[in-house]
Amino acid sequence: MVGAGQLARMTQQPAIALGVELRVLANSPDESAARVIVDTRIGDYRDLADLREFARGCDAVTFDHEHVPTEHIWALAADGVAVHPGADALVHAQDKAVMRERLTAIGAPCPAWRVVSSADEVSAFAEEHGWPVVLKAIRGGYDGRGVWVVRTPEEFPGGELLAEAFVPFQRELAVLVARSPHGQGVSYPVVETVQEDGICVEVLAPAPGLDPEDAAQAQRIALKIAEDLGVTGLLAVEMFETADGLVVNELAMRPHNSGHWTIEGATTSQFEQHLRAVLDLPLGSPAMTAPYVVMANLLGGDDPDIFKRYEHVMAHDPGVKVHFYGKDVRPGRKIGHVTATGADLDTVRARAKHAAVYLTTGEYT
Amino acid sequence: MVGAGQLARMTQQPAIALGVELRVLANSPDESAARVIVDTRIGDYRDLADLREFARGCDAVTFDHEHVPTEHIWALAADGVAVHPGADALVHAQDKAVMRERLTAIGAPCPAWRVVSSADEVSAFAEEHGWPVVLKAIRGGYDGRGVWVVRTPEEFPGGELLAEAFVPFQRELAVLVARSPHGQGVSYPVVETVQEDGICVEVLAPAPGLDPEDAAQAQRIALKIAEDLGVTGLLAVEMFETADGLVVNELAMRPHNSGHWTIEGATTSQFEQHLRAVLDLPLGSPAMTAPYVVMANLLGGDDPDIFKRYEHVMAHDPGVKVHFYGKDVRPGRKIGHVTATGADLDTVRARAKHAAVYLTTGEYT
Repeated sequence: MVGAGQLARMTQQPAIALGVELRVLANSPDESAARVIVDTRIGDYRDLADLREFARGCDAVTFDHEHVPTEHIWALAADGVAVHPGADALVHAQDKAVMRERLTAIGAPCPAWRVVSSADEVSAFAEEHGWPVVLKAIRGGYDGRGVWVVRTPEEFPGGELLAEAFVPFQRELAVLVARSPHGQGVSYPVVETVQEDGICVEVLAPAPGLDPEDAAQAQRIALKIAEDLGVTGLLAVEMFETADGLVVNELAMRPHNSGHWTIEGATTSQFEQHLRAVLDLPLGSPAMTAPYVVMANLLGGDDPDIFKRYEHVMAHDPGVKVHFYGKDVRPGRKIGHVTATGADLDTVRARAKHAAVYLTTGEYT
Repeated sequence: MVGAGQLARMTQQPAIALGVELRVLANSPDESAARVIVDTRIGDYRDLADLREFARGCDAVTFDHEHVPTEHIWALAADGVAVHPGADALVHAQDKAVMRERLTAIGAPCPAWRVVSSADEVSAFAEEHGWPVVLKAIRGGYDGRGVWVVRTPEEFPGGELLAEAFVPFQRELAVLVARSPHGQGVSYPVVETVQEDGICVEVLAPAPGLDPEDAAQAQRIALKIAEDLGVTGLLAVEMFETADGLVVNELAMRPHNSGHWTIEGATTSQFEQHLRAVLDLPLGSPAMTAPYVVMANLLGGDDPDIFKRYEHVMAHDPGVKVHFYGKDVRPGRKIGHVTATGADLDTVRARAKHAAVYLTTGEYT
């Protein structure tokens, strides 16, 4: 796995059970996954020589993030390395313009969109589709960075950007599917994601009150995207639920924050599923282990010394599951997550929220 | 954790989530846990200098096996190391004569027993309690080794042994409890263990059809032993169910084969629970995640190349969970286990058995 963040770290847990010898390419031995994976190589994912050295002897190469240059992935594939997802698929998670073009071509529901490179072009787009306009960096955006919601042409930040019509959504959903090289596909239940300032703070599984027809439609859309784009491994499809139906927002081709609930909440965690998919093993059951599962992210607060609060959370609720990423606490940084499961959604949600808020702020909700 | 077998290996999984930096003392870098734990130290657990070097900087020291000399554990404690379980407790899992003496003193149900060192003493014991007599090595027995069921004095193998009256049991049960240094205790549901040739092959959770009064009594016995012996960490109590009630067979003070089902089958796995207990953190919920959970051990068969069978098992049953220990296949060696969960015991048991038998022998059950 190229990259040694929390996604690689959490992938080590099922790798241990499956007997998969996981190797990661880290920037430094202090990174989240490097702390828990014996076969950690230090190198630069932007350097083809480092990638080639890293890939030597691997049965498959996959990613913890989308930042490896597309041409390097082509080069690895040309060397005979089994890269999953391949560059032709991954480019759709790297380049939002390529993604919109392809999704439009295969008939997946998208907002109106256009590539723009001047304030005048933004105005022209807004004349057709109205203000506000959502502008996105074509490459490299993450967790709300690289996204601007503009209400006048003067707010155009410059550069070549993807313009999208603002979608008046009711809520945000996510569908996580896996597809293996031999073509097997599975879909997890559709979840609701709750964002604050562009960062996911809470995931509710399954999405409460979602019409079963809409849920099935969301899963069909995600599986069709995975197949048509030739995705191997996981594909997370973020969607808007609107009065007129579903609209695809973003794609990610790796374990995804919206799937952390699967560690306890599904028979096969997304991390195990990703390993099975990229190794072309039969996929595991995505069935839920409880009626409701809620995941809440832990965002670093002002007080870095969380140990006493960690003890409180464990004592307060012996059933809540705490996951730390081995990262120093910095305000707003994702340092971990908590998961609660149960039969009553309100209770499960309150338990997860209490643990997350108390751990990060010391406030008692 | 002193020792780097599969118990330490599986402890790494919750250590990753809890943010606990797990260090192991291994005999060699090829051992099961050494393959997945970055902070692996190589040394000899029988050597006090190695143990002292290993313990330096650890918040707590615990064990993957019972073989560390009791006097070394006393020495570590005298150095100020937080050792859990402490030597005064652990000796009851190391020395079967000490264990029987103490259990008898606290009123835990035991078979008749006596330390013997000659065929004549075995005969005298049998005159009181009947043949056959069960003879056990006082220290060092494991997985059926160091146990003899003798029907005549001529079968006495020599040495100083523990003689026990043969218990005509209906089945074998196990109770897993945890106790933390501040005195919190929890008990997992009582399970049935199925042995073949002295090796556990299958664990059924909860023990099917067990009278609720007997289940509560078994849990009370185990919690009382943990408290009276001052156990910190996990305590597994193996029991016989007989027509006259429960009889304690063996004790172990570490994660135990009879608790592997908890990885998927309980809210808190035994490995997480052991970490929480030895670090004096609040204990986690032992509640089951499904009505029935069955674990079957994978014992190495004649054919070491299990990869195709591994694929079959995953394809045949997407819900079965496979755990490998990173060990080479040798006939009879525990190389992993499988777990199935569900609402119907017969189905769950058949699924686990199919996976275990097919993986190890290629036979289709």
